[in-house]
Amino acid sequence: MATAAARTFALSAPLPLDNGQSLDGVIVAYETYGELAPGKDNAVLVCHALTGDQYVASTQPLTGKPGWWERMIGPDKPIDTNRFHVICANVIGGCMGSTGPASPAPDGKPYAMRFPVITIRDMVRAEVALLDGLGIERLHAVVGGSMGGMQALSLAANFPARAERVLAIATTARHSAQNIAFHEVGRQAVMADPDWQGGDYYGSGHSPDKGLSVARMAAHITYLSETGLTEKFGRNLQDRDAKSFGFDADFQVESYLRYQGSGFTRRFDANSYLYITRAMDYFDIAEEHGGKLADAFAGTPARFCLVSFDSDWLYPTAESRHVVHALNAAGAPVSFVELSAPFGHDSFLLDVPALDRVVKGFLA
Amino acid sequence: MATAAARTFALSAPLPLDNGQSLDGVIVAYETYGELAPGKDNAVLVCHALTGDQYVASTQPLTGKPGWWERMIGPDKPIDTNRFHVICANVIGGCMGSTGPASPAPDGKPYAMRFPVITIRDMVRAEVALLDGLGIERLHAVVGGSMGGMQALSLAANFPARAERVLAIATTARHSAQNIAFHEVGRQAVMADPDWQGGDYYGSGHSPDKGLSVARMAAHITYLSETGLTEKFGRNLQDRDAKSFGFDADFQVESYLRYQGSGFTRRFDANSYLYITRAMDYFDIAEEHGGKLADAFAGTPARFCLVSFDSDWLYPTAESRHVVHALNAAGAPVSFVELSAPFGHDSFLLDVPALDRVVKGFLA
Repeated sequence: MATAAARTFALSAPLPLDNGQSLDGVIVAYETYGELAPGKDNAVLVCHALTGDQYVASTQPLTGKPGWWERMIGPDKPIDTNRFHVICANVIGGCMGSTGPASPAPDGKPYAMRFPVITIRDMVRAEVALLDGLGIERLHAVVGGSMGGMQALSLAANFPARAERVLAIATTARHSAQNIAFHEVGRQAVMADPDWQGGDYYGSGHSPDKGLSVARMAAHITYLSETGLTEKFGRNLQDRDAKSFGFDADFQVESYLRYQGSGFTRRFDANSYLYITRAMDYFDIAEEHGGKLADAFAGTPARFCLVSFDSDWLYPTAESRHVVHALNAAGAPVSFVELSAPFGHDSFLLDVPALDRVVKGFLA
Repeated sequence: MATAAARTFALSAPLPLDNGQSLDGVIVAYETYGELAPGKDNAVLVCHALTGDQYVASTQPLTGKPGWWERMIGPDKPIDTNRFHVICANVIGGCMGSTGPASPAPDGKPYAMRFPVITIRDMVRAEVALLDGLGIERLHAVVGGSMGGMQALSLAANFPARAERVLAIATTARHSAQNIAFHEVGRQAVMADPDWQGGDYYGSGHSPDKGLSVARMAAHITYLSETGLTEKFGRNLQDRDAKSFGFDADFQVESYLRYQGSGFTRRFDANSYLYITRAMDYFDIAEEHGGKLADAFAGTPARFCLVSFDSDWLYPTAESRHVVHALNAAGAPVSFVELSAPFGHDSFLLDVPALDRVVKGFLA
């Protein structure tokens, strides 16, 4: 396991937001792995996904589980901490130390639903402010999968001088109607829970765990492939020889989903789930740049690498190809590979050796 | 619109169930369209899907909307009521007049969760009892889409002498892990709603509308194709020129889903949703017949027609093909067509002229 440093950075200036307001007193919680070179030219910013956090390669303090990308980051790993200084920051709106809906507003009470609706670009603005604070002018690379890939693309589009390389995995430049639809189900599940209390559940002794669990269950299905679910669970029964003719979790897949749902509520804040899914649904890089995706990347000096997975139906290969075509139109150097892996969208987090080779090669 | 007859049939004997119990006093609510021939040889049993009902070709009394398959059934339509006597029964476990969880148990109070967990085969047993009551020994055809197709296949497997033709559309012989997973999300959403009250909400003045609405929203996404959602809604905003930076239904797809969810709660009983989804998840014809699907259809004299849609990801073409292979192995005459239609699973309900031609031709 790589060494970890628990750190926070307080922005010195208000953070301007896409909604037209700005946010005072923003804190960004982050972790780093590996040494920053004297020339500060070896930094790799890794951006996390919807339910991820800054503990990319060190133990998550709430769950005690390994970091979510330990297989990718560490000494002699594809993102080699003997060589690179890896930075991973909790997104604003999140719940692992960066300013979010559970943070105190100027009146001392939690923001709850008074927190502004943020965007992926706002998250990136906070990350760039952190880089400014760390004195890192130019990243060796920005890397991310899923929502992390959205941040990587947004950084390239909005701060084109800040990264030499952009590696975007299993992601998209815009949320589709189906993507929005699944997120809306999750938000409605949270908001339907009376323990949500309009978002003002902090300190009440209750939180909308049931609603958040249902939201997580629905989302989790979208992270896996139909084939993967069939291979892993099929119609196998859970700890029984016959159906119960009841409403217990007869099937392993039911038991698994319930476990995923309830486990999630112990480490994630429901309001953060609302805000971050909203940011993802609002995501449309082309719209931010006059409606043409190629214009978003015009003039960027960065090199790009896009990776998709053939079993990913959340952000299917066509979405990556759409980005690649725009980068081609913008004249940016880009490589693109669709990898074969059975795990659906979650492939970017799992044992896909071909991905390791792509990541290692692109960062070299 | 075809003529309708509001009818119920009371079973004279207890209905044996797959759980080993039997159910007394079962009522089957049904509708018919077209005249029964003197030889009683022109009956077509149409089986409805999860949230359908017996009002297949006449106005649904709760919603005032046209029957769910009026485009298919009526004079000179593909299922021609000038020629055929069409019967459609509300499934047991349902909530449109057939015995279900909202019906009174022997103690006079609603069954609620005391209702037995039923199966697709149990639904078919009730339908066969209805046919017995009507004096119909042999159907010209049994027809259904989605869960209706499951009933059609189950009737062929378990009562092989009762239908000359079996037309199963957009369906499967077993529920996959992903199918079960989506249903489990829906059930958990209902059960997480405190107004569910362990199922004893009848007469309380409250019902788990929020949970049922979330369940319906999640399910509804699975009925549509990603392409169809993109074509219909894309990222279009709802009644506004710009994003609200709030949690209103900014996007048309959000507004549409909320409407689908809330509308559903006005016509459907939440406990029925639990029981019927459970019956679908338990569905596995092969398992009922020693583990080999071909054995389920051995010796059936019926002719079969299977139809799938290329955009249906709920019950994709591979599931129909699996049934066709089993029918081939059983030596049953079967025709099979995958139709191209953009509407996803819901294609069987929508304007797909090629389906009309298949249905008309197969019943001729």
